[in-house]
This record gives sequence, C-alpha cells and structure tokens, in this order.
Amino acid sequence: MTTENRRAVRQVFIHQANGVDMWPAADHVAVEAPLEIRLSYRVDDSRVEKTICVTMRTPGQDVELVLGYLYAEGVIRTLSDVAQLPKDEVRCGEDAEVLTIELGIGVSGDLRRLDRNVFTSSSCGVCGIPSLDALAQAACPDLPAPRAMLDRGIVPLLPSTLYDRQVAFQQTGGLHAAALFDTSGRLLRVREDVGRHNAMDKLIGSCLLDGVSLHERIVLVSGRASYELVQKVLVAGVPILAAVGAPSSLAVSLAQAHGLTLIGFVRGEQFNIYHGEERFLRENIEVM
Amino acid sequence: MTTENRRAVRQVFIHQANGVDMWPAADHVAVEAPLEIRLSYRVDDSRVEKTICVTMRTPGQDVELVLGYLYAEGVIRTLSDVAQLPKDEVRCGEDAEVLTIELGIGVSGDLRRLDRNVFTSSSCGVCGIPSLDALAQAACPDLPAPRAMLDRGIVPLLPSTLYDRQVAFQQTGGLHAAALFDTSGRLLRVREDVGRHNAMDKLIGSCLLDGVSLHERIVLVSGRASYELVQKVLVAGVPILAAVGAPSSLAVSLAQAHGLTLIGFVRGEQFNIYHGEERFLRENIEVM
Repeated sequence: MTTENRRAVRQVFIHQANGVDMWPAADHVAVEAPLEIRLSYRVDDSRVEKTICVTMRTPGQDVELVLGYLYAEGVIRTLSDVAQLPKDEVRCGEDAEVLTIELGIGVSGDLRRLDRNVFTSSSCGVCGIPSLDALAQAACPDLPAPRAMLDRGIVPLLPSTLYDRQVAFQQTGGLHAAALFDTSGRLLRVREDVGRHNAMDKLIGSCLLDGVSLHERIVLVSGRASYELVQKVLVAGVPILAAVGAPSSLAVSLAQAHGLTLIGFVRGEQFNIYHGEERFLRENIEVM
Repeated sequence: MTTENRRAVRQVFIHQANGVDMWPAADHVAVEAPLEIRLSYRVDDSRVEKTICVTMRTPGQDVELVLGYLYAEGVIRTLSDVAQLPKDEVRCGEDAEVLTIELGIGVSGDLRRLDRNVFTSSSCGVCGIPSLDALAQAACPDLPAPRAMLDRGIVPLLPSTLYDRQVAFQQTGGLHAAALFDTSGRLLRVREDVGRHNAMDKLIGSCLLDGVSLHERIVLVSGRASYELVQKVLVAGVPILAAVGAPSSLAVSLAQAHGLTLIGFVRGEQFNIYHGEERFLRENIEVM
C-alpha cells in the first residue's frame, strides 16, 4: 500500500452477517474527510485570505483537487494565475485540514462567484451559484467542430483498463474514479475520490499542474454522468466523456449544446452514444 | 407511466454501438433540473423572501424535497413550523422552477445557516456550512439506547423489494432511491432522485408531511452511504440505515458517535454491519 493509498483507505472492524450467522471481520472503507479551501488574493494594497469552500473529499492529491476546482469555477485560467503552490494541505487539529492557494497579482478570476462561504459534500461539485439566473450565466465554452478520431472498438476496453488501476476502489468499493485516455485507449492517469466531482477535479488539476493537454482525449468516469461532470470536462476542453453508468437529462442537454461526445452505459461489448457520434471514425460506421 | 413518472424520465434518441456496428435507438434518461428554493419569513414587522438554495434534482415531490431539506438543516422542527404549504413548485420559464416555503410567525429555525445563497448539485445535500468550525458544530442528535428489533434474515430481502418498486430506475438506470421499511421488512414508501441526498430528503419530507413515524424503522439507500445521508437519518431519528453500496469512513464515524446501526454492501445473502449490531435480535446471534 502506498502512502497516498494509506490516506485514502481506513481499516474498520465490523460484523459480517447473513440470515444464519454473524461473525467479526476486518474491512476497509474509503476515507471521507473535510478540506477547507482558502484563497489568498490582493484587494487594493493588501492581501485578503478567505475560506471559499469546505469540501468532503478523500485525502491525497489535495493541491490537484483545489487547482481543478478553481479552474472549473473560472477563478484561474492557467497555472501561472497561482502565485505560489502549497506543498500540500496543512493539518489543523486531528481531522481538520486546510489548503490555501495564493493567487498572482492582478488575478481576480470571477471572485464574485466565490464571495460567499460554501460547503460541498462528497458528491457535490458546483456549490456556490446563487440563483437560477447565475446558473444560466455559468456558460460552458463550445468545443471545436468535431473531427472523427475514435475507433468504436476502443470504448468497450476502457472500463476494465481503469478497473485494473483502481487500487483503492478494489479495497473499499467506495470510490469514484475519473481517468484520462488517449484515443488509442492508452490510460494516461487516474484519480479516485469518494466524490465523483472531486475525482474529476483531481484529474483535471493534475493535468494543469503537469502541463498535460486534454484536447483529443477521452475522460472515463466510473459512475453516472451528471451536469457537474459535463460542465467540468467542457471547461477543460475534453471532447469525449464516457461513463460506466447513466447520464442525466441535463448532462445530455449540455453535451448537445456544446458539442461534447457523451457516451454512457459502457458495459460488456456495448455502449450508448448520447451525442456527438461524429467523433467516431467512419470506417467503423460504414460497417453498419 | 404515471404523471410523476413522466416528469422524472425523458426520452432521448441515441446511437447504440459496439466494436462492429452502430445503430439509432430510443432511450430514457433520468431528468436532472434546477429548483430554486425560497424561504419567506418574518423579520420585525415585515415578511422577507429570499432564495436559500438552487438544487439539481429530479422534478416531482418537490414539496417533500424542500420540507425534508429544511428539516435536516434544522430550519423547521415540525410541519407546524410551516405557515402555508405550496401546492407544488411554480414554473418560471421553460426549465426554471421555484418553490417558496412560508415559515410560521416566530419560526426562525437556525436561519443564519441559510443566510447565504448556495447551489447544491444533484449529489449534494449539505451545502451551506461556512467553515470547519461550523461543520463541527452541526451536531447530530444521539439515538436512544439500542434495542434488539431486527431479524438478520430480513436484511438480504430489502434490496430486491426496493428494486421491484423503482419504476423510474428500471427505465433509466440513473436514479438513486431511498426507501422506508418496517422491521418486518415491509416496504412503506420509496422516493427516487438523481441526487441521493434528494431521494432521502423526499422520503423524510413525505413522512413529515403525512405524520409517519421514523422511529423503529429501516431506511435503505440504493447506493453508497456518505456523511450527508447518515446526518439526515440521525436528525430524523431513524435507528437503522442500510446501503446497497459502501459506507465512507465519516459515515462509519458518525454512526459510531451517535449510535446508528449502519449496514453496507447488502448483496445476495450477505451484508456488513459497520456499527450497532445490538439492534439485531439475539435469537439469530446465538446461532453462531
């Protein structure tokens, strides 16, 4: 077990049971713990530090998580918008952890959206939008016109490739994953978290940190595809989102509006294409 | 398909594919749409109306959803804290819906916790807590001392009983469910939503609305058990929470701290008891 992994997984002592017997056992659960995200930025001549969010997440890769979150929210647009990267979160108390991001001079992003204190649960990635009007204004960018780039035979292989790398999930059954693939089906990186939006923020934040391009790439999520996940991949410019589970109606609408290829129910040999089938290579399509 | 069901499910036209073929098909997706929750209450001599939350939810049973949410947040403690119940949400625009709850005179709940605008995604139920300190203060009540009440043979039957009633899930594969059972395994009611916290809020809100007791009952959730779900059942006084999926570490800690019986991975004949095995009848335990 790696150091990262030790923080993501906790051993617990439980009882296992069925209708006949009950016996003590050891088990592993995915760690869910609060992280307070603080932003430090200049207002006039002084530096202001304020809490923008408390998120329930799985500890580890917290810098990636926060970078990905701020990027999706439009607060930062490149890594150079951050004046200084924290090494990692600071522990304060037994379970309380805080991470402060210092914005560069002149970087304000859209701080009004963050000018309130919000708490995001382990499954919530879009807290902080104050009204339906503000939600409608939180526009996603359109993707470039679709170009055929993906062989259909690649898609059914993605979930098993991901599963082989989901170390903490295999121990706990309690973690969502987001994985980056190239169009040949090669797994480039994986991030896991109790919150599906956190796994996505960590994945995108890690790419931002390492200068990895997200164009012409596929992101696979281990669960369902909701509004928040589609919004995050659109902001990052990822053209193809695949989900092992179902998409929601709003995920489909957002994919249609901005030209995302949205794939769902990747199970066994088959999958559903909810929008953007133009990104599949014609060669296969003509087999029809 | 019932009227409720028509609002929860939307037909979409997709392509199904595998490595060899691609063909057009009709499919159903779970509806995810924003609801703006407004609270109307008295301050001095005038009535104030303000937006407290925009939540991504599956339309239908919105009054139950909002009541359950306000109850979990401690804003209302009984149904009589609400001066007037809205018939249902008000449509404003094509997809924008608003529901206003009018609090009774003298009811303030803990409005400070809601004195900000928050947006909750389809998977988020605990938005609005401003800092780690506030999170620590959001204390859950302890349950009464455990009393043996549940036959272990009942637990493995719960998921299939729920599945038979999950109408919208069977169509879409995209909805979470929360279900109320008595200790004989009889299903009392089910609510479904794209957000697991919303399904729970609808279930608890519907019980509040109909005066249904939650003591000596079991709540089963179709997915994983996180902090937010445990918090909601504790506030409602439910002694037993069972999940088809995994619990998080914080769900286990909260169950331990407040005396909740927390069951996870109810699959086939077997299940895990993460805490509170004293609520199982001894008769079965002695079979060991």
